[in-house]
Amino acid sequence: MNKRKRVGVIGCGYWGPNLIRNFHDLLQEGMCAVADLDQDRLESVKGAYPHLDATTDPDEVLEREDIDAVAIATPVHTHYDLAKTAIENGKHVLIEKPMTHSVETSEHLIELADQAGVTLMVDHTFIYTGAVRKINDLVESGELGRLYYFDSVRVNLGLFQHDINVLWDLAPHDISIMDHVLDPDPVAVAAHGAAHIDYSDEPIENITYLTVYYPDDLIAHIHSNWLAPVKVRKTLLGGSEKMIVYDDTEPDEKIKVYDKGVEIEPNSDPEALHDVLVSYRTGDMLAPRLDDTEALKREVRHFLDCIETGKQPVTDGQAGLDVVRILEAAQTSIDNDGARVSLAEREMTTH
Amino acid sequence: MNKRKRVGVIGCGYWGPNLIRNFHDLLQEGMCAVADLDQDRLESVKGAYPHLDATTDPDEVLEREDIDAVAIATPVHTHYDLAKTAIENGKHVLIEKPMTHSVETSEHLIELADQAGVTLMVDHTFIYTGAVRKINDLVESGELGRLYYFDSVRVNLGLFQHDINVLWDLAPHDISIMDHVLDPDPVAVAAHGAAHIDYSDEPIENITYLTVYYPDDLIAHIHSNWLAPVKVRKTLLGGSEKMIVYDDTEPDEKIKVYDKGVEIEPNSDPEALHDVLVSYRTGDMLAPRLDDTEALKREVRHFLDCIETGKQPVTDGQAGLDVVRILEAAQTSIDNDGARVSLAEREMTTH
Amino acid sequence: MNKRKRVGVIGCGYWGPNLIRNFHDLLQEGMCAVADLDQDRLESVKGAYPHLDATTDPDEVLEREDIDAVAIATPVHTHYDLAKTAIENGKHVLIEKPMTHSVETSEHLIELADQAGVTLMVDHTFIYTGAVRKINDLVESGELGRLYYFDSVRVNLGLFQHDINVLWDLAPHDISIMDHVLDPDPVAVAAHGAAHIDYSDEPIENITYLTVYYPDDLIAHIHSNWLAPVKVRKTLLGGSEKMIVYDDTEPDEKIKVYDKGVEIEPNSDPEALHDVLVSYRTGDMLAPRLDDTEALKREVRHFLDCIETGKQPVTDGQAGLDVVRILEAAQTSIDNDGARVSLAEREMTTH
Amino acid sequence: MNKRKRVGVIGCGYWGPNLIRNFHDLLQEGMCAVADLDQDRLESVKGAYPHLDATTDPDEVLEREDIDAVAIATPVHTHYDLAKTAIENGKHVLIEKPMTHSVETSEHLIELADQAGVTLMVDHTFIYTGAVRKINDLVESGELGRLYYFDSVRVNLGLFQHDINVLWDLAPHDISIMDHVLDPDPVAVAAHGAAHIDYSDEPIENITYLTVYYPDDLIAHIHSNWLAPVKVRKTLLGGSEKMIVYDDTEPDEKIKVYDKGVEIEPNSDPEALHDVLVSYRTGDMLAPRLDDTEALKREVRHFLDCIETGKQPVTDGQAGLDVVRILEAAQTSIDNDGARVSLAEREMTTH
Repeated sequence: MNKRKRVGVIGCGYWGPNLIRNFHDLLQEGMCAVADLDQDRLESVKGAYPHLDATTDPDEVLEREDIDAVAIATPVHTHYDLAKTAIENGKHVLIEKPMTHSVETSEHLIELADQAGVTLMVDHTFIYTGAVRKINDLVESGELGRLYYFDSVRVNLGLFQHDINVLWDLAPHDISIMDHVLDPDPVAVAAHGAAHIDYSDEPIENITYLTVYYPDDLIAHIHSNWLAPVKVRKTLLGGSEKMIVYDDTEPDEKIKVYDKGVEIEPNSDPEALHDVLVSYRTGDMLAPRLDDTEALKREVRHFLDCIETGKQPVTDGQAGLDVVRILEAAQTSIDNDGARVSLAEREMTTH
Repeated sequence: MNKRKRVGVIGCGYWGPNLIRNFHDLLQEGMCAVADLDQDRLESVKGAYPHLDATTDPDEVLEREDIDAVAIATPVHTHYDLAKTAIENGKHVLIEKPMTHSVETSEHLIELADQAGVTLMVDHTFIYTGAVRKINDLVESGELGRLYYFDSVRVNLGLFQHDINVLWDLAPHDISIMDHVLDPDPVAVAAHGAAHIDYSDEPIENITYLTVYYPDDLIAHIHSNWLAPVKVRKTLLGGSEKMIVYDDTEPDEKIKVYDKGVEIEPNSDPEALHDVLVSYRTGDMLAPRLDDTEALKREVRHFLDCIETGKQPVTDGQAGLDVVRILEAAQTSIDNDGARVSLAEREMTTH
Repeated sequence: MNKRKRVGVIGCGYWGPNLIRNFHDLLQEGMCAVADLDQDRLESVKGAYPHLDATTDPDEVLEREDIDAVAIATPVHTHYDLAKTAIENGKHVLIEKPMTHSVETSEHLIELADQAGVTLMVDHTFIYTGAVRKINDLVESGELGRLYYFDSVRVNLGLFQHDINVLWDLAPHDISIMDHVLDPDPVAVAAHGAAHIDYSDEPIENITYLTVYYPDDLIAHIHSNWLAPVKVRKTLLGGSEKMIVYDDTEPDEKIKVYDKGVEIEPNSDPEALHDVLVSYRTGDMLAPRLDDTEALKREVRHFLDCIETGKQPVTDGQAGLDVVRILEAAQTSIDNDGARVSLAEREMTTH
Repeated sequence: MNKRKRVGVIGCGYWGPNLIRNFHDLLQEGMCAVADLDQDRLESVKGAYPHLDATTDPDEVLEREDIDAVAIATPVHTHYDLAKTAIENGKHVLIEKPMTHSVETSEHLIELADQAGVTLMVDHTFIYTGAVRKINDLVESGELGRLYYFDSVRVNLGLFQHDINVLWDLAPHDISIMDHVLDPDPVAVAAHGAAHIDYSDEPIENITYLTVYYPDDLIAHIHSNWLAPVKVRKTLLGGSEKMIVYDDTEPDEKIKVYDKGVEIEPNSDPEALHDVLVSYRTGDMLAPRLDDTEALKREVRHFLDCIETGKQPVTDGQAGLDVVRILEAAQTSIDNDGARVSLAEREMTTH
């Protein structure tokens, strides 16, 4: 990164300060501007980084000529407008997950960025963790065999969001991981949910169950819950040869690879066809050492590298769109009593 | 139990010997006869209880005049015929879960038992554990407040059954607990599953996800899996005042009661309606001491007591039918791409 | 704290920045000066707090007239000289644990502070955690009954210190907790250890076992280890009525209170004296909600409050001396093949 | 085992029935006689094995000419007399741990068995578990590097014994494992304990801490406690290359092998000798698959095999004596305020 970039961050709530810290670590004064509607947050950020230009008007950042890139960490319903303006002003853009609130707007951003020749990246942070990178390596190496299922649980007693339900809040993490490590395109979804706390004009689900159908009986399932008494972040990935348990609450050994599975033993007696025995085998369990670099640090470095070289980010607009398409279809299913909703082919969406 | 009962057991596979042991503890020689198609199993049982009459013909037990009651612990598809014969011979019947393979046959058994005036009980063992009894007490006391959700996970690397899939094998445990502790009648189900191991003419699902809809946004979900690398038996029960985690793999402290929940704090600014704050509160966690009497011992004693007194068993035919109705509807949903399937009103089914 | 204090921090290694952050939160610009021998550390701290006066000469801080108090977070062997100079310059002093490297120097600091009329406090941070405060409340309330034992394990794969062994590095945490919650004075210690890594002129123990004898058969034991493959921070506190498990690695439920114990049941047969039955009883387990205020924040506030009001800190010089006396005696024991070493009476030490 | 052996078991308390079951599995009717002072226990055993000759007089078993071997599972203080009589009657002997209550009596039994040419084996069951066998393999392979420490914790709320304290009750398990996997002979011990429950004429320690010194700074430590609120069975084995955590309460993955350790990095600056850096390295963790054959089954088979072939048992009299010598020395230390007690050279003890 011999050519220093200049970056602005829009949104200083929960996640924005982490983006600022990481951009500052890499760019120092290049991390130069920040916008938030809340004056208190701005002052808190300036306390830590006094050199920052801080403003309550995002356009002041989006329109600055000396800024190369912006990171958008605002509520979901503002992502599209802010990113659109940024792209139209020729900025490279890193958007917080989920990319936007609809497939249509996500597709439009991809198109705009394509035309403008800027880098569009979505902040699917988990993809840059040592744990998910290891899972991806194991899947790609074929070590797990044929994949059977992906099951993820992300529940805790969490902050209720005002503009999105728990599906749009928590499931993007799991969906982005699922989309990253599973090779085939999903074909359909079904989702079920319930809204128990009455604090908005519309019911806002605080518990959802999402099933994603893939070809060849590969099935995925994601349980999201803001109202659980304990914190669980656990993903099971079942393959014909090996199976992975990924527990993100473990301080060490987040990934455990089990050499377990079943074997079909043909009955010795050919008459007794129905007595085929399915036995299980069990071997070692390995918890591989994981790279513990902060995921966001690696991600921010990757963003700057993609800007520099023009290469496509690992979590590009298409990856963001994949997640939004599943979220939108899942919401349609929830709103229709859990009906199965087909997913359009992915290749059609980027024309 | 001053009048000694005489009991026969049909089926000496995995569960039968436990029934025999418990009946023997209570009745000694009254536990008198046993039937199984497999001669080896019979001999093994006779090794431990030499006084038993053992036969490969179940009818020899079902038709004996000196036998008051039979326990049926055979494969599911045989339950109906065996229980029907037993009832027709005037025997009281304890049937292994699930009660039968269909709503129709379960309803018929209830009708037959009603007419014959015999006790019909289903072996939903978990209902008799200290843990589920404690959960039930807590729900009935109102301590949990309004119930929001029931979420149960029962997965492990398990024996693949030949006549039933994982839904019919594992989910009856969770469904029977759910049906026991939740007061309202469920209104509909949706279920999703996949069959990954090809060992039968029909696909036999080894992973299923079952959603059960109740009135007033109460939602239940059951994840059953024969192909998981780790053993999980965990149920979350969320209420407005307290929440329970029931972990059956814990040697002690199976039940944890969390004094946790959310509170809606009206925003001080009446203009800012959308800024109602949902905050969470967190208090003590209590793991109540549980009665550790063996569940099957308590259950068998209850069965003999119901025979003696004529009172209705806690897990009577209706409880068995409730479970079978959900299983049958769930299977219909799985076979129809996860479509929502309504449950007929329970009161209609027992005329 | 209407009168703003001015504070300097000596030492910006691992712990110093935490002190600076907390003093800054309470005093803002009153947290005004910092010293460290390492220029890089000073610059890193100034990056976060540009207003700080930073120097490599601690005397520049210790002698400043406008500074009321200093916090000393340097290697142990420097504590005495720095604290002595600070006190002689009329500063209130907060010293990192262990207070000093010897009983003699600790006693001298207490004497000097007494004469100078300044507050002398030792940074036994754990005493200010919600967990230890809760343990202390439970002990003081008498709920645990008669105390039997205090058993603490603090092991992990840790940084090897150059000037102190694992006993002086890790055990002060446990000893300070033990000294705080146990009422009687300890009477003797015995300790065992081994040095496995040869990196210094003197052997530096990386594993130690310390037994502390109290009156009335109360016994305490502390296992400290820099070379363990897993991180353990677990304390058992056994009483006649209840017992506590304090697991500091748990994110929630750090404290579990078990209503467990033994009961002596006199044998019904008076002849069979040797057959007195000791049975155990088991009741509920309670994990009380803990105050999760940052311990160091509460501690720093307490330090400033003691300066303001002249009251004695909870972790005053005497508390620091208690810990050093046990450490010194334990080291004597280790150096003498584990021989029992008596502890002088505490009341004698402050004359 | 073509020649069928005939075996008697003395003592039918907690452990005896397990011995009977395993001998019966291998010898059927060869497991022929049983003695216990308690008539109820005898009847309970005869309920399960009606063919057994049962008697309240152990001599009836010890003197029977048709019996080849006896297993002694009685209170410790009776071991010597019973085993002596058995050996004098030409029986092979398997004795429950600890072998006897003193070094002198254990040595005498070894001598007697030697003269009589019978097999003398001690029931150190853990040595025959898949877990300890795996640990032993790992140590023998050299994979762990130089051994630094063996640390074992065995605590729970347990039954208080009447004739022995917790050291003699629980520590034999840990000592036998330690003695089995560590190659060098221990040189000295020190032990500390306390007796909190007053139920006997003599104080009976319910908590003990035992340190065992080996050559070359290898150190071992065993914590035994009958009065802990939670059950812990955890052994850490630290080596220069790898470290093992053996957690016997884990249903699976009892053994975890950590590729962790420290490395000394010489400082680049030769002047700064004291700044040698001890850094730690961390690699994969492996939980190897363990043979899950019941340990007692393998042990009983080994006993019969040794009788048949005349080979020395893995847990022979010498292994039993090693454990008793450490126990006796530890008790001496406890009774003398924790004083260090040297262990006589092992080779001297077997003439």
